[in-house]
Amino acid sequence: MTGPVESKNTTVAAIARRAREAARALATLSDDVRRDALIIAADRLIDHEAEILAANKKDVDAARVQVSSGEMSQSLLARLQTSERGIEDMAAKMRDVAKLPDPIGRILEARKLDQELRLEKVSCPLGVIGIVFESRPDVIPQVVALTLRSGNAVLLKGGKEATNTNEALVSILRMAFTEFPQIPADALNLLHTRADVVEMLSLENDIDLIVPRGSKDFVAYVASQSKIPVLGHGEGVCHVYVDAAAALKKALDIAVDSKVQYPAACNAAETLLIHTEIAPLFLPEMLAAFTDAGVTVFGCSNTISLAPGAKVMPASESDWATEYSDLRISIKVVDSLDDAIAHINHYGSKHTESIVTEDEEAAQRFMQEVDAAGVYHNASTRFADGYRYGLGAEIGISTSKLHARGPVGLEGLTTYKYKLYGDGHTVANFTVESKGFAPDR
Amino acid sequence: MTGPVESKNTTVAAIARRAREAARALATLSDDVRRDALIIAADRLIDHEAEILAANKKDVDAARVQVSSGEMSQSLLARLQTSERGIEDMAAKMRDVAKLPDPIGRILEARKLDQELRLEKVSCPLGVIGIVFESRPDVIPQVVALTLRSGNAVLLKGGKEATNTNEALVSILRMAFTEFPQIPADALNLLHTRADVVEMLSLENDIDLIVPRGSKDFVAYVASQSKIPVLGHGEGVCHVYVDAAAALKKALDIAVDSKVQYPAACNAAETLLIHTEIAPLFLPEMLAAFTDAGVTVFGCSNTISLAPGAKVMPASESDWATEYSDLRISIKVVDSLDDAIAHINHYGSKHTESIVTEDEEAAQRFMQEVDAAGVYHNASTRFADGYRYGLGAEIGISTSKLHARGPVGLEGLTTYKYKLYGDGHTVANFTVESKGFAPDR
Repeated sequence: MTGPVESKNTTVAAIARRAREAARALATLSDDVRRDALIIAADRLIDHEAEILAANKKDVDAARVQVSSGEMSQSLLARLQTSERGIEDMAAKMRDVAKLPDPIGRILEARKLDQELRLEKVSCPLGVIGIVFESRPDVIPQVVALTLRSGNAVLLKGGKEATNTNEALVSILRMAFTEFPQIPADALNLLHTRADVVEMLSLENDIDLIVPRGSKDFVAYVASQSKIPVLGHGEGVCHVYVDAAAALKKALDIAVDSKVQYPAACNAAETLLIHTEIAPLFLPEMLAAFTDAGVTVFGCSNTISLAPGAKVMPASESDWATEYSDLRISIKVVDSLDDAIAHINHYGSKHTESIVTEDEEAAQRFMQEVDAAGVYHNASTRFADGYRYGLGAEIGISTSKLHARGPVGLEGLTTYKYKLYGDGHTVANFTVESKGFAPDR
Repeated sequence: MTGPVESKNTTVAAIARRAREAARALATLSDDVRRDALIIAADRLIDHEAEILAANKKDVDAARVQVSSGEMSQSLLARLQTSERGIEDMAAKMRDVAKLPDPIGRILEARKLDQELRLEKVSCPLGVIGIVFESRPDVIPQVVALTLRSGNAVLLKGGKEATNTNEALVSILRMAFTEFPQIPADALNLLHTRADVVEMLSLENDIDLIVPRGSKDFVAYVASQSKIPVLGHGEGVCHVYVDAAAALKKALDIAVDSKVQYPAACNAAETLLIHTEIAPLFLPEMLAAFTDAGVTVFGCSNTISLAPGAKVMPASESDWATEYSDLRISIKVVDSLDDAIAHINHYGSKHTESIVTEDEEAAQRFMQEVDAAGVYHNASTRFADGYRYGLGAEIGISTSKLHARGPVGLEGLTTYKYKLYGDGHTVANFTVESKGFAPDR
């Protein structure tokens, strides 16, 4: 993956350094400028619709050749293709982000430490963000909106199948931003090759956060290669637990929705846990519903023995840790709420976990003791989404515990500074006796 | 550093697994239990004062031998030694942490997504925290207080010089916690060897955060060895910038305090930047003050030529990036506010940076454009401290931008969960048309 492309690599380092400079200017932009720039940029996407469609046609034509030769999947082609409606959606999403409240300059805490000595904890941009994504070109306007709204410079690298579309989009957006002299040109840059990405991952002095959007293997690769913090969801091994006190209809609906409504999503369920007391009653109906929906079931031995007529494949140990991402699900009968929690904490990926029960106490324990970004009571795991959560937009879903957890919106692209306003204050005057402070360490 | 200590290593993995289990129980403890346990633990430290002093005497006696043979520094010995007063301080700090507001279960955001569908973002413990520190035994009660108050299990490893003291403290604290049957024994464990630490760094499934407290080399070593997120300050290369519009007395006081008041602290200043317009007036007085305070000065060529009488060593490039941690400082004359900001953003360690000026606009620009955890106006860099900030206690100062930045108190030991309370809600019923949500992705 690395190669003798030193001039290219030097270029990425130079771009990142210029982005770092740009970030300093972006940090001083007013809310108005950042908002208006997105609205204008959205307009310009519509104005230049024909250019975008022409560029996209080139990519789609090339992709069609690859599909017919078997080098590309039909679904990748579908995601690559855009349309007038698609461009309207891109513009609409940029306008949506413009409408979100300013994430920068929020006073998160304020304290008066002494006469004329005031401390404020204030939200500010992270600085420079590198975003690497797959073929969908509609990602570009969205992430550019999120990064500019939060005052960050961005280095983008899209899928090579979408090269023409991506270049058209970035050049239109960059041109739109030139209408605002306060916005530096290097607020937004497009990288071109995988070697560029490898080089970017090494630039920890000039890049503050990497956001990989793609397969879990890709995210894991990026995390292993970079010293820069990475914000990316790994797997979504999500569970629905049907408790002894579950309402059967709710449990059926939630389990079907969590698995079937969009099985490729990371918030889809991969394993259904069923309390042993309710299993004889619930399982036959559940299996029938899954069969109707075309779901293949991998069951534990109890699942199989409780459903002699149904078609259930025997689950192996690896099934409990698998993100199927399609119409397959594993089912396990558990002896207790404790067993369900232990199973989830062992096999889950800390993404989203749901309990179906009418027992409030069981729900509370589940939500307290399960270690995940989202813990749900009587709701489908599919609700784990920045839009549904009301964040207005989403840059991804994080399964890490630090910084941002769960769906990440604008706030996840910010950090904070402590600003201290004094009038010549020195620590020597702040002794334990006079000011009640702890002794110096 | 690694070695054939497999049984030891197995033990650390087993301890970490039990700590993970303990963390599940800790996450459910009430505020009362976590608070009362710290108050009782503080009492027990006082009750067992004689034991602690006896154990400490063993460590100190052994250390004295090492000091006389030149294997240990006098300052290390001083930090190792405790006293009745020292134990009272330890107990007082535990009681202080007990008094802090509960960091767990805070509702950070709440939204009604639909009828009977309520989303809450709630603070919760991180889980299991590994803390590695140097010889000062008074760290133990403090970090145990912080981790228990925030509902986390902790694995501690102290300096080997303090083995007896550390073991006495941990066994008294563990004994105190047995007075609370809800607190699992594995909430607190002491590790013993460097090999234990190496093993701990590999246990990313059972440990959520590593906090190294020690030299920057040690922190860097830990960060390079572990896949577990690390919360630890690296260097503190802090600056005081004396602007053209500085009030000279304030500038003198702040520069002296920032350098001299406690030069070994990470928030002490290492470089003084002086605007060229004010340098001829300010430098002679400043150099005289530093000389009085026993500070050795390394100056740029302008500094040297502006102070022909004073004793100034020529600064080399490496001086601008050096954390002296003692009574040395580098001084550079800069041409503008922009140059000062550029110097700091290039050489600073993103810790704490101060501008001295009566020009509000210059102050605002400095505080906006300097990329650091703390940006100060007319105040000593030495204020960067969890106690002074009113956090009540501090586990360290972070120079990273993600998760916690600057002085880190209880909040830095927490994360959050999204809790969604529904009544059988499925996503299939939330179409764009009916609920105004974004289309499914």
